Amino acid sequence: MSGVGCMNNNREGSSLSTISNTLSAVNSKPRSHSINYVSSDYESLDYDHYESELTVREEKLNGYKTVVASNVIRWLIYFSIAICTAAVGIFIDTVIEYFCNWKFQSIRNCIDVKHSTVECLIIWILFTVIPTLVGCCVVLFMEPSAAGSGIPFVISYLNGIRIPRMTAVRCLLVKVISVVCVCIAGLGGGKEGPLIHIGAMVGGSVVEAWWKGFRNGPGRKVIGPLQNDRERRDMMAAGAAAGLSAAFGSPVGGTLMSLEEGTSFWSSSLMWKVFFCAAIAFPTYNAGKNVLFSNNTNPSESVHSKSIYFFGKFNENTIYFSYSEFPIFIIFGIFGGLLGALFVNINYHLSIFRMKHIISNRKKLMESVFVAVFVAIINLTSMILLNNCQTKLEISSSNVVQMYCPAGSYNEISSFWLRTQEESIRSLFHYPIEAYSVVPLLVYCVIYFILTELTVGLNMSAGLFLPSLLIGAAWGRIASIVIHYYSPGTIGVDPGKYALLGAAAQLGGIVRATISLTVVFIEATGNVQFLLPLMITLFTAKWTGDFFTDGIYEMQIKLSGVPLLVSEPPPLTSDITTEDFMSDTVCAIPHILMVGKLVDILNTTKHNGFPVVASKVCFCRTRNIEHKCYGLLKGFILRSQLNVILEHNLYLTPLHDENYCTKLELLRKSTYTCHDTQQFQRLKVDEDERGIVIDLRPYMNSAPYIVRLVST
Amino acid sequence: MSGVGCMNNNREGSSLSTISNTLSAVNSKPRSHSINYVSSDYESLDYDHYESELTVREEKLNGYKTVVASNVIRWLIYFSIAICTAAVGIFIDTVIEYFCNWKFQSIRNCIDVKHSTVECLIIWILFTVIPTLVGCCVVLFMEPSAAGSGIPFVISYLNGIRIPRMTAVRCLLVKVISVVCVCIAGLGGGKEGPLIHIGAMVGGSVVEAWWKGFRNGPGRKVIGPLQNDRERRDMMAAGAAAGLSAAFGSPVGGTLMSLEEGTSFWSSSLMWKVFFCAAIAFPTYNAGKNVLFSNNTNPSESVHSKSIYFFGKFNENTIYFSYSEFPIFIIFGIFGGLLGALFVNINYHLSIFRMKHIISNRKKLMESVFVAVFVAIINLTSMILLNNCQTKLEISSSNVVQMYCPAGSYNEISSFWLRTQEESIRSLFHYPIEAYSVVPLLVYCVIYFILTELTVGLNMSAGLFLPSLLIGAAWGRIASIVIHYYSPGTIGVDPGKYALLGAAAQLGGIVRATISLTVVFIEATGNVQFLLPLMITLFTAKWTGDFFTDGIYEMQIKLSGVPLLVSEPPPLTSDITTEDFMSDTVCAIPHILMVGKLVDILNTTKHNGFPVVASKVCFCRTRNIEHKCYGLLKGFILRSQLNVILEHNLYLTPLHDENYCTKLELLRKSTYTCHDTQQFQRLKVDEDERGIVIDLRPYMNSAPYIVRLVST
Repeated sequence: MSGVGCMNNNREGSSLSTISNTLSAVNSKPRSHSINYVSSDYESLDYDHYESELTVREEKLNGYKTVVASNVIRWLIYFSIAICTAAVGIFIDTVIEYFCNWKFQSIRNCIDVKHSTVECLIIWILFTVIPTLVGCCVVLFMEPSAAGSGIPFVISYLNGIRIPRMTAVRCLLVKVISVVCVCIAGLGGGKEGPLIHIGAMVGGSVVEAWWKGFRNGPGRKVIGPLQNDRERRDMMAAGAAAGLSAAFGSPVGGTLMSLEEGTSFWSSSLMWKVFFCAAIAFPTYNAGKNVLFSNNTNPSESVHSKSIYFFGKFNENTIYFSYSEFPIFIIFGIFGGLLGALFVNINYHLSIFRMKHIISNRKKLMESVFVAVFVAIINLTSMILLNNCQTKLEISSSNVVQMYCPAGSYNEISSFWLRTQEESIRSLFHYPIEAYSVVPLLVYCVIYFILTELTVGLNMSAGLFLPSLLIGAAWGRIASIVIHYYSPGTIGVDPGKYALLGAAAQLGGIVRATISLTVVFIEATGNVQFLLPLMITLFTAKWTGDFFTDGIYEMQIKLSGVPLLVSEPPPLTSDITTEDFMSDTVCAIPHILMVGKLVDILNTTKHNGFPVVASKVCFCRTRNIEHKCYGLLKGFILRSQLNVILEHNLYLTPLHDENYCTKLELLRKSTYTCHDTQQFQRLKVDEDERGIVIDLRPYMNSAPYIVRLVST
Repeated sequence: MSGVGCMNNNREGSSLSTISNTLSAVNSKPRSHSINYVSSDYESLDYDHYESELTVREEKLNGYKTVVASNVIRWLIYFSIAICTAAVGIFIDTVIEYFCNWKFQSIRNCIDVKHSTVECLIIWILFTVIPTLVGCCVVLFMEPSAAGSGIPFVISYLNGIRIPRMTAVRCLLVKVISVVCVCIAGLGGGKEGPLIHIGAMVGGSVVEAWWKGFRNGPGRKVIGPLQNDRERRDMMAAGAAAGLSAAFGSPVGGTLMSLEEGTSFWSSSLMWKVFFCAAIAFPTYNAGKNVLFSNNTNPSESVHSKSIYFFGKFNENTIYFSYSEFPIFIIFGIFGGLLGALFVNINYHLSIFRMKHIISNRKKLMESVFVAVFVAIINLTSMILLNNCQTKLEISSSNVVQMYCPAGSYNEISSFWLRTQEESIRSLFHYPIEAYSVVPLLVYCVIYFILTELTVGLNMSAGLFLPSLLIGAAWGRIASIVIHYYSPGTIGVDPGKYALLGAAAQLGGIVRATISLTVVFIEATGNVQFLLPLMITLFTAKWTGDFFTDGIYEMQIKLSGVPLLVSEPPPLTSDITTEDFMSDTVCAIPHILMVGKLVDILNTTKHNGFPVVASKVCFCRTRNIEHKCYGLLKGFILRSQLNVILEHNLYLTPLHDENYCTKLELLRKSTYTCHDTQQFQRLKVDEDERGIVIDLRPYMNSAPYIVRLVST
């Protein structure tokens, strides 16, 4: 596939790729335009350096001091991204904690004190349906793009696809409200995935706040050059890492996740900044939570304590493994991979069904309410039907109901529904083997699997990190109980260890990340010793899963129609050229032309990027029309830049040292803010202006990427 | 700097970069050819896909099954790289262990049993000089390129510079012998750096072993396509990671180091392979060492036990930190950065001195012997002069001498010289505070600093990871003793913790890696809790160090003249074009020409790569000679490929499905093996063959990278 390596870098991919070095007549090979329909909805980001006469002049006139100042400010911006992401994370946690306590308290009250099942059902339904309605309505009516975990969008954005409204502040707000609602309602969605998206959104918006604050002072020259897509992508990568770092207390894992998923544009200086950001976010978040929750936490309840380890500390002296357990780790991996592939496959068909049949907002809302009611009913029903009684452990006293059980014992399955996800995962990892029996675990595992399938794909912000971990931890624990039952003498059968491996296998089977997940698990458990078992399990889960389906994020990206290119061309494609799949109408613009002509071109085509050529005449090559000769390629210019040039009459004054700054700022702003608006707009121009000649050379990018025409 | 981002990717950088899309007459701007002299010694690797009619045909005829088989074989190759690297690591360790035991036993014997200082000095000198002589001679007379840690070469290679003899098997052998000798002699050099280089060399050579084993069977079609520079670079990256993974028991850290240093050509699929390789190497190495050393290890001696943690397990319950210690961590970082910058600076001047004055092999050998004798004398002298006596601790009984001390006590500084570096670093990290006093620590720290400065730069394979760690651990321990002395009530002043932070600061100040070092430290201590202090210290050390000097590897790369491009262009260079610093004689070859003409071109120029153009006439543009017009660019061909075409008369038969395979194999082999030989060779051709016409199109790379000529 000639030059496909460059495609990812192409600015405004649709129109550039044909510009070979001569733009002369093209061969008559049949073409496959099958992917045109996807690429028309999305644009590529302008990740290349914008090099023009303007920027060269700016650099010369600003000098070295401004470069240094920009560097300092850049670090401060990264610092503020980390702080803001951590702050949003703390806010989300606080609100969830408050409402969940209220909810669980009310339910416990009506079951154990009032003994009224009907009242309880009503309360439960209210506590599920109201947040669901709120969370779904804000998404549907204010910001539909905030639905889902947002990680597929982050992946796409980091790899160069412009996702509309990705950095809008309203999207951020809606996302926060919606994720809080999902967690309060107790649906099968976590807050960790959305927190990554939120971190990325914070990263994408912070620089604008800096700009607004300092543009009138000396900061103008310094912050101005930081406002470009390249810097924004770096900051979003850092924000995403900060989000994961805060969510799981895992700075290195966050950095690696950002790297593993957004690897197209990685450099070691970027890694350094991303790590800095993740490293600041984690202690900030942790310190903030310690300050807020320190008074209402009972230090004896290790599961609820806000330790620095998200999964709770795994003690190396009590939990260990031997080499003879390796086959078990592999079996765990295979099982996790299979379950993960099943999950992805069901989710795929469910998504298709939703795309076909649940289209109107009314239906979407009804679907959410249905899921919410289903959650409340199945939770309560499972508690009534499965009346396993469990002797009260000291550690689990406050979060369970007695229901029909004798005094001093509690309804076992209630402990799952009356805890937040974090508490559940920690209890599954750390409670002794007798705390859970097989049947409730199995029921919980199956219900949660269904619940997560239903929730992922609703019009709310729900992640699937924690749900996957819970499902995996549940079946991992079941496995440990079964092994313990059939060979009670086996050493090393710790339920927590097996729950951890099950969680890793399940998450790995769904998400298919490996190295970053390994590190996240190590950082979240505080245990380096498990490196080997975790690696074996995650590797096997990934391989097994990949054998059957794509990972969940790739599947979602494909379904959403985002034209994300894979990093390597698929096999047996070396005879396909860029020409075969690019857009077949290329519009080139001469470097010197009249305003009228330019406006006509802009009004008759929908391209967002135009090659600038030396020829005097300009042609649009369209299908089935005789090919015309293009001139020599001079540079490349974006529609947004042309719009600015025409709107602000930049062409009237020649470029000099006094006005370059204003011009550059206008051009930069245009590319930078056009994310959230439709770019195409019909231009009007007075008849007497049509004759003025524009010279595009000072404004165009003079060093665009090009792909040669292979002519044998 | 127009197109500088592509420079790194340029194959045979020196001649390609001028080929703009027309190759028409060039402007008359003055040029700075100052960097020409460096680039003439080294060539860029051919990291781009080789796309030609041959490869397209190969892919089509081989089909999908061969692609799958290649993928399977590739994983097996990575597996074998990991196993081989681990095996070499185990071999090195075993030999060092054996000889060091012998050496220390003999010295203890002559001091404590025979009480003869003179005899002892002679024995010591023999034990230092003989290995030094062996280690230096093999390098000087067999393989001069094996000198040094080799990490600068690995960095250069992974970033696209062809280092001669980098993958020769002889270089690997010499490296192993030399590094063993350095460690036995007790010079200030470690085996960890060279092990990374060794891993890379193993990675670069294993595929050839596979080829030799299977080329006659069905493996020919499968392994053939894996023999290219791109795959080799991937395998070397994996091998380097495996080396670090084995050396420090740090698979994630190894992967990250490979990434942080060789990031130019990274992709997520490569990361996945590198991690796989590192993940296999670590347990293999560990299991191998356990099997070999399990019988002669006293399980009570925690410092000497072959634990899975290279630095020994840091227990979280005894060693912890509070937020109030953060200023101390920052001060540690600053001090480490300063000392690191000092180290780099001294090393720089020492290297310059060596380059100027120590040129002949005789002088180099004498220098090594001088350093060896110096080591032996200063070790013994320090023991005699600094007769600090220390009560024997149970843990340190076997590795010390009593000397002039009373019974039951030992000469304190002897414990440093009569232990291997691994044992020393573990004892500095884990012994109680009373095991070392300030003066011996200070003396050790200063002596080792000088020793390491002298050793790094000798003609032997000596790394500086462990020496840096030892220096840092020593001053870290001094700091903890001082703090303990002046405020004995301070909690958390654990000597081991401060030694660890000192080691991190010192290594970070010299090497300037951050995220990978953080992870290495976490994996090597088995303690995740120290993540924050380590990050703070390493960040500060890097920033402080960067303020004064480059990192040691960048400095060494610059001194060695390797033309490694930085990932970002330096500030204020946007008006410098590729044209300004490229080689000014470009030789283009027409795509159809006569053999005689081609031979003449190859004999009159030293370029290793040639653009193939459509024009009928070929020109060499030389300085001060009138510019001629070039034809349209068709592709790119390497001298090695042209040599093969001429030598094997490939041009005599047209390309068809029967002979493409042989031709492709010859061409591949030529590029792949030319690393170790001089490429330029004068060609001779019979007078009657000169008239035969060659068509280069099937053999040339039809999709080379190009940089446009910026013409305003």
